Amino acid sequence: MLGQMMQQPLLISSLLLHAERHHGDQLVVSRLVEGGIHRYSYQDLAKRSRCVAQAMTNLGVSSGQRVATLAWNGHRHLELYYGVSGMGAVLHTLNPRLHPDQLAWIVEHAQDQILCFDATFLPLVAAVATKLPSIKHFVLMTDRAHMPENSGIPDLLCYEDLLSTFDGDFVWPHLDENAASSLCYTSGTTGHPKGVLYSHRSTVLHTYASALPDALNLSARDTILPVVPMFHVNAWGLPYSACMVGAKLVLPGPGLDGQSLYELFEAEGVTLSAGVPTVWQGLLSHVQAKNLHFTSMRRTIIGGSACPPAMMQAFEDTYSVQVIHAWGMTELSPIGTVGILKGSQLDWPLSQRRDVQAKQGRAVFGIDMKIVDTHGQEMPWDGKTSGELLVRGPWVVAKYMGNENETPIVHDAAGHGWFPTGDVATIDADGFMNITDRSKDVIKSGGEWIGSIDLENIAMAHPAVAMAACIAARHPKWDERPLLIVVKKPDAHVDRDELIAFYKGKIANWWTPDDVVFVDAITLGATGKILKHRLREQFQDHLLQSLKS
Amino acid sequence: MLGQMMQQPLLISSLLLHAERHHGDQLVVSRLVEGGIHRYSYQDLAKRSRCVAQAMTNLGVSSGQRVATLAWNGHRHLELYYGVSGMGAVLHTLNPRLHPDQLAWIVEHAQDQILCFDATFLPLVAAVATKLPSIKHFVLMTDRAHMPENSGIPDLLCYEDLLSTFDGDFVWPHLDENAASSLCYTSGTTGHPKGVLYSHRSTVLHTYASALPDALNLSARDTILPVVPMFHVNAWGLPYSACMVGAKLVLPGPGLDGQSLYELFEAEGVTLSAGVPTVWQGLLSHVQAKNLHFTSMRRTIIGGSACPPAMMQAFEDTYSVQVIHAWGMTELSPIGTVGILKGSQLDWPLSQRRDVQAKQGRAVFGIDMKIVDTHGQEMPWDGKTSGELLVRGPWVVAKYMGNENETPIVHDAAGHGWFPTGDVATIDADGFMNITDRSKDVIKSGGEWIGSIDLENIAMAHPAVAMAACIAARHPKWDERPLLIVVKKPDAHVDRDELIAFYKGKIANWWTPDDVVFVDAITLGATGKILKHRLREQFQDHLLQSLKS
Repeated sequence: MLGQMMQQPLLISSLLLHAERHHGDQLVVSRLVEGGIHRYSYQDLAKRSRCVAQAMTNLGVSSGQRVATLAWNGHRHLELYYGVSGMGAVLHTLNPRLHPDQLAWIVEHAQDQILCFDATFLPLVAAVATKLPSIKHFVLMTDRAHMPENSGIPDLLCYEDLLSTFDGDFVWPHLDENAASSLCYTSGTTGHPKGVLYSHRSTVLHTYASALPDALNLSARDTILPVVPMFHVNAWGLPYSACMVGAKLVLPGPGLDGQSLYELFEAEGVTLSAGVPTVWQGLLSHVQAKNLHFTSMRRTIIGGSACPPAMMQAFEDTYSVQVIHAWGMTELSPIGTVGILKGSQLDWPLSQRRDVQAKQGRAVFGIDMKIVDTHGQEMPWDGKTSGELLVRGPWVVAKYMGNENETPIVHDAAGHGWFPTGDVATIDADGFMNITDRSKDVIKSGGEWIGSIDLENIAMAHPAVAMAACIAARHPKWDERPLLIVVKKPDAHVDRDELIAFYKGKIANWWTPDDVVFVDAITLGATGKILKHRLREQFQDHLLQSLKS
Repeated sequence: MLGQMMQQPLLISSLLLHAERHHGDQLVVSRLVEGGIHRYSYQDLAKRSRCVAQAMTNLGVSSGQRVATLAWNGHRHLELYYGVSGMGAVLHTLNPRLHPDQLAWIVEHAQDQILCFDATFLPLVAAVATKLPSIKHFVLMTDRAHMPENSGIPDLLCYEDLLSTFDGDFVWPHLDENAASSLCYTSGTTGHPKGVLYSHRSTVLHTYASALPDALNLSARDTILPVVPMFHVNAWGLPYSACMVGAKLVLPGPGLDGQSLYELFEAEGVTLSAGVPTVWQGLLSHVQAKNLHFTSMRRTIIGGSACPPAMMQAFEDTYSVQVIHAWGMTELSPIGTVGILKGSQLDWPLSQRRDVQAKQGRAVFGIDMKIVDTHGQEMPWDGKTSGELLVRGPWVVAKYMGNENETPIVHDAAGHGWFPTGDVATIDADGFMNITDRSKDVIKSGGEWIGSIDLENIAMAHPAVAMAACIAARHPKWDERPLLIVVKKPDAHVDRDELIAFYKGKIANWWTPDDVVFVDAITLGATGKILKHRLREQFQDHLLQSLKS
């Protein structure tokens, strides 16, 4: 017996229709790649997104085909988000920080038909254009006045010219809600990148969950500035959730340095931002150096990597900006957990609350999670026992694009499928998950596991440390022991023994790193995370050598 | 091309599973029909709901069959909500305020198999038991100690005895998300009641939307007391949304008088409540008479009927309780709009903000709405032009149960189906909808429409008026003119001329009621609304008679 309620598919175009009809005069403000600030309303966005759908149809894009972007957070990128997915094609956001060869591999693997890109990436695209046989049209996301005379790209199209020939008289099609809507590749440290193919259904459900009070808590009273790029897991879904709730949306373009961000925060009255810790470090340094404060900003969502507790405290104590830890993955659309306190925790002492907030958070409704041992047995939620983190939910990947015959999913005794995240974590009695390591980064010392993230957070709290990474170094007796790699702050002084002593009392003695290596810089990957496998290649024999010598 | 995310149905059992796993120690507190307070955790609720599923299976209930309840808001009712829907059967909540003959008609029409009821309703059930041929088992929702010796109901079962024979070792089935989950009848003023058959999908989507910051704004830091009965449109979905967000849930049982409610608010630290205006009037009177204040209560959701602005102001100004207007219908699961201000409205002057908050609110994402003229043409959103309100969305009714060959839905030129609400409303430029009348209650004076609700709100603001209703009275020249029916507060004095003069300057002169009739009481229907058709039957010729005399 079926219920008798209206059957309406969950579609990305519904988000835009809602914003247009119910928040039509709400603003979208963008810092342009060409310079200056662009502002228009959700009504304008809706009309131009329909023009995008018309233009793409005219260029031969049909349902299910991929349209790629290489672009910053800006209004034209947003129009492609809605126009391409809304018409039934698939928006494929490329990460410009990847190596050109990797980009070319991904475009070919995804069989992208069209590549739309910001002027910033003209040299990159010109360099790889001949290696992209699937691309039928290159579109520069600018107006006629900013088109280069000779781009080196044959038949380069101008985005504004394309749109100007259409009137926006287009009705969003009634799609299957399980139709593919967008595509992100996740670049593992080994093997080829893997494509996660989102659906309209997974996106809309993720949008509902992410806007809840105990998730990102988004409303029509918010002004949201996503620092997290729209080329990185759909900017954590904020381009969708802003439309769902009718928030003002501020898109920072290429200006991700502390000063540019701060100026935009203040000029547009931003209440909420979101990004990875490395970006916030830049903002914090700028604000501290210039002795500034935040007028309107109240909350910032930090994810991508664990936020060092020291940074969390600086934002909250000095600037009254609440730092909210969130955890996710490309395979999770991306949000899995958010670190919002429960009612029973509100009266806890500050230090205890801080400890909870430093964790990755609790599951938003839709996501279930568990930690398991190497036999797949569920481990207790005691905040101490760690295990591999598995997740399930309607916005979790089931298969990777182009690998339909393989599945990453593991099944439990009840027949439920779970996605193994590759993270090692604890979960406490209140359901707060804490990632202690990536499975491949965990340090296996004498049969016991040492989490590298705790060790890094302690080092990062030392005033002389700018960046710290802890890796497993080979050891003759214990198999592996922790080795700390440190970049010092400019003009700061600290030595090995002082840093080793800094761990005393903060952690079990046997977790203390065996040695410290000072380096000038640590290489970050395309998504701003430390490339630990490179450090391991370089330093994994460090202890063997120093013990020998 | 389909997306490649996990396929997980949206199920009511997922809400309970989430509460059990992620908020297992959160409390459910109930005032018992038998007296006293009962408290347990979501873990307990989950286990006992699985026992309900086992017990119902054992009684022969199979997938899609209906299990009816006649019960107050309490933990056993909550277990039936989750146990019956979760196992794949349909929970049919009966409204005990209906006439026994109407109840019997509804049970027969729905073909309910089992009837579970609170001890309060023993006399009612005993009186109609022989008229309920579809019911195979009657279950009294109490323990063995409170079972009557001779109930007059053959083979009366005891709820606690039923559950005690099961261990809760039951796995929620993997249902089609479009399967029917629950059933409410809406009693129109004419014709037979009509059954709205919700699905798991419609319920879970409604739960997501209703918990959003701009809807009911529910979190794990809330303690929610639904005054709105669980027999009335699923208590506006709060039994579901409390589990989704992990809020503490306080269920008031039969104690809906001002004193009982106030005591429970204070004892349990209730932060949020929800109900119809008539209940809040009782609470307000109690608090005013005893000179009390609210320690923890911050917000109250008022719906079902328009909240008189005077009551809204008393709650906010005197008691610092934010009053949030919401609008919905049984056919909408029920939430359609909520009156939360937008960012651009926060700086408006108080009186202007109050005017907006007195409206029924703006659409939550998932619901679209429009107003149309008698030809189905969409009318402008100017806050002045009124038209019939139409809605659409995935938790809006498509057909009524047992009337599968008829549909209430009307289609527009684009092929979209809309549900005609029977309400007449305006929508302003910010998307705030304001119901000016039920289509059948609107007063048609000389070809123009006069909304009865505005006229009632003005009368309710007069200090001597306890209740006011405005109806269309027949008029020889204007066809219809407004007639005000008033119940005075005890010992208050006001006459016709003073009330007529009270309208001056508050409304267009020609909207002023032609006359006032004072009565001792006005009859409310089963859902707490004024039965205007009865007033019309009684007073529709009042003006003809008074003009004649």
